[in-house]
Amino acid sequence: MPDVAQTQRAEAGAGPRVVTACVVLIGDEILSGRTRDTNLSYIAKHLNEVGIQVREARVIPDIEETIVSVINEVRGRHDYVFTTGGIGPTHDDITADSIAKAFGLPIGYHPDALAILDAHYKETGGEFTEARKRMARVPEGATLIENSVSKAPGFQIGNVFVMAGVPMVMQVMLDSLTPRLEGGAAMRSRTVSGQIGEGTIAEKLGALQKRYPGIVIGSYPYYRGKVYGTSLVMRGTDPALLDEVAGEAAALIRGFGVEPVEGDPA
Amino acid sequence: MPDVAQTQRAEAGAGPRVVTACVVLIGDEILSGRTRDTNLSYIAKHLNEVGIQVREARVIPDIEETIVSVINEVRGRHDYVFTTGGIGPTHDDITADSIAKAFGLPIGYHPDALAILDAHYKETGGEFTEARKRMARVPEGATLIENSVSKAPGFQIGNVFVMAGVPMVMQVMLDSLTPRLEGGAAMRSRTVSGQIGEGTIAEKLGALQKRYPGIVIGSYPYYRGKVYGTSLVMRGTDPALLDEVAGEAAALIRGFGVEPVEGDPA
Repeated sequence: MPDVAQTQRAEAGAGPRVVTACVVLIGDEILSGRTRDTNLSYIAKHLNEVGIQVREARVIPDIEETIVSVINEVRGRHDYVFTTGGIGPTHDDITADSIAKAFGLPIGYHPDALAILDAHYKETGGEFTEARKRMARVPEGATLIENSVSKAPGFQIGNVFVMAGVPMVMQVMLDSLTPRLEGGAAMRSRTVSGQIGEGTIAEKLGALQKRYPGIVIGSYPYYRGKVYGTSLVMRGTDPALLDEVAGEAAALIRGFGVEPVEGDPA
Repeated sequence: MPDVAQTQRAEAGAGPRVVTACVVLIGDEILSGRTRDTNLSYIAKHLNEVGIQVREARVIPDIEETIVSVINEVRGRHDYVFTTGGIGPTHDDITADSIAKAFGLPIGYHPDALAILDAHYKETGGEFTEARKRMARVPEGATLIENSVSKAPGFQIGNVFVMAGVPMVMQVMLDSLTPRLEGGAAMRSRTVSGQIGEGTIAEKLGALQKRYPGIVIGSYPYYRGKVYGTSLVMRGTDPALLDEVAGEAAALIRGFGVEPVEGDPA
């Protein structure tokens, strides 16, 4: 991914390199509302800890043409792409084939994946059916991603990491692949909250944002029964600057006679 | 949206018209992992009930350029687009301006929105600040979407419906705008579950799918402590055909000596 990386280094000027990712959630069940996705927020938090920022997410159906075009669109635009879903043994699991097609690569059985699954079914007494063998198919040149929960591995091809959709399986795969990732500047955040309406502080907050273009300030209203207020979330890579802006945000809230709290409201 | 509608009617042949939607979740807080989105599944289920299928979802940051390009990409591709987030009073709420830009329209204060907000702040004793007035700004020609929770309205321009990000506000907006939607064929679903591995039934299930191309069969493994199994979800517009395939799916599971249950496992 030298081109993407270089462009972003140039954009970032002399500052620390910004490393970005796109998450692609593949599955009809998310778009139908049957399954409420929990993977995106988990992946985003995890990547953030290693200095990778999720800048975009897509939720797409189990349709080959769509998977191919979306993967090809986003893999050139981000340092990393992470997909979830569609790598099981059934007819509707078409992610591996679609990713191979996106890369213009043949797909075949990975010998290590076959060995892992063969050992697993021997141990558990399950039959290693043709359908289950499908889970050993990866694009040519892909490297496996270990699955310590249910064995059937994910895979990496280029800058695309293909993981399971079942959250506990996805989570161990993400842990397993993390050493392969090269993070950039860690994005840190500070939150300051107060029992005050967004509309009351909005003007002063806008002015604060203008004074600190290097920190992104988000304003999020909250409701806790009859109590309402606003959480101000400051994000940036410079810890000292972040401290300074968090201090200013607290002072801003205090200026309206409201005592600010560090973090989210209880 | 006559072009989109016509194309899709043609695609659907003599069958009932398929009406599609894209959901665009706007907000840095979802991409950072701070907020776990619940709006997508709510919107998808709600729309499904009125015969509209969510075919795609995007999660994008609060960046004008991104909002403009994504909205312009998806509004031509789907009958309807629903956005959430970014319509509050603070500097980071840039959705209304970005949507106006996407449509090439000027933005200004909507007199009804000003009146609603003015009355609201008079009643609650809040100050109707310049920042709060921002929430009355909509693209020229937009119609408002009522917000019975916190008053500041959403709006509709063309086939794009712009809603709040706070779930309880989004939900009343969605109820309020629903009479404006024209649904197509209602997508129905049936679920049959059994304590059996996906890999065991995969081959027969694939054959079943081939015999019924008009019904989409999804296979979803589940884990409940030490109990695992598979839920088969059948989706389609023809209730009789759906009953038939659900019966076949139950028989398929029973064929392996496992008693199927209707719906998801307890």
